[in-house]
Amino acid sequence: MVGEKLVSLIQRQETFAFNTGRGAGLYDFTSDVQAWLREERLGTGQINLFCQHTAASLIIQENVDPDVQADLLSFFRRLVPDGPDGYIHTLEGPDDMPAHIKTALTASQLTVPVNKGRLMLGTWQGIYLFEHRTSPHRRSVVFHFIGEEL
Amino acid sequence: MVGEKLVSLIQRQETFAFNTGRGAGLYDFTSDVQAWLREERLGTGQINLFCQHTAASLIIQENVDPDVQADLLSFFRRLVPDGPDGYIHTLEGPDDMPAHIKTALTASQLTVPVNKGRLMLGTWQGIYLFEHRTSPHRRSVVFHFIGEEL
Amino acid sequence: MVGEKLVSLIQRQETFAFNTGRGAGLYDFTSDVQAWLREERLGTGQINLFCQHTAASLIIQENVDPDVQADLLSFFRRLVPDGPDGYIHTLEGPDDMPAHIKTALTASQLTVPVNKGRLMLGTWQGIYLFEHRTSPHRRSVVFHFIGEEL
Repeated sequence: MVGEKLVSLIQRQETFAFNTGRGAGLYDFTSDVQAWLREERLGTGQINLFCQHTAASLIIQENVDPDVQADLLSFFRRLVPDGPDGYIHTLEGPDDMPAHIKTALTASQLTVPVNKGRLMLGTWQGIYLFEHRTSPHRRSVVFHFIGEEL
Repeated sequence: MVGEKLVSLIQRQETFAFNTGRGAGLYDFTSDVQAWLREERLGTGQINLFCQHTAASLIIQENVDPDVQADLLSFFRRLVPDGPDGYIHTLEGPDDMPAHIKTALTASQLTVPVNKGRLMLGTWQGIYLFEHRTSPHRRSVVFHFIGEEL
Repeated sequence: MVGEKLVSLIQRQETFAFNTGRGAGLYDFTSDVQAWLREERLGTGQINLFCQHTAASLIIQENVDPDVQADLLSFFRRLVPDGPDGYIHTLEGPDDMPAHIKTALTASQLTVPVNKGRLMLGTWQGIYLFEHRTSPHRRSVVFHFIGEEL
């Protein structure tokens, strides 16, 4: 149990950009989140991560066996096949509407608890940016912490 | 970077009702959220939106081409076809159990960062109430802000 | 409308373990969350629930008819069939990779508004731990409240 009533809560907000250089796939940015908490000297609280796009999303997944990521990617490709068949919105390419659907099926935002500056992730959990477009993009994620300073 | 340690954090909570007059589909309520932040003079912080139903959900999607919404709707209809085939729970109608599943596949709640009173959405992002039942309903969404006053 | 600017915000964080004794399925822990809020004398605020696993997730669902849970479970089994066919990652068993995918399709975390110590859930909403593995496991969920004391 943590949290003392006499310590006043503060907040920090910063926007980060990530390149999805391999195109569609998962990009682990757990260490970027952890590094920011350390640099800002943030202690116990919550961090909200918000992806400012509709063709990329956030996901918490196993960070050990890379086959998990390959299987995840191929599942979503089978579930939401690239167009143009079956879609009206094809103007931005055959992979655009499927990217919107994959975003809807995963998450645009995640809130993760923090304890004394450490992300409260499980042993095998990593935080990933999930790029759904075929070609590389530059993606913005807002980090917002509410809690105590270290 | 924003957030000053000397400003104390406050919270506001209010419940809003929305009519889903066209039945199943997406209902943009971004401007309602933005208007509430302005009226309450709320500054930098986080707003949590919570849908109090199990047959409607929340989703962040592209707000430009209406075809995106049509494609999204028809994808979910193909993925989770209306009953009664394949379901035990059919008492509340053939569209009820599929509505629960579609809610599970999207989101019941979203937390969105706010900067100086402005929702930190990407250029093409809108916040939608996603009605999954065929007929119109009245849906409650709780708005809860934690952060600084303007 | 609630939330007074003169009341200072506090936070509490605690980790709870739940046994998923029947294996794959939904486990209602709404009353555990409500009991913790009461014991800690927590008032209006937000509670974030975070599941520290990649083969179990969180979900808000109807808490009345148990058939809803049976239908939900069989839908996910049809959508993401157990391996080994179609997966590379099969080392941890035929139900492991499907469990990761089902986690991605639902939620690892939920934030629920609280009003004067009461979870602001809709009439039919319950908070469930969703076990995706066939055999029973012990699952950790972090409870983190930010808000006012009662």
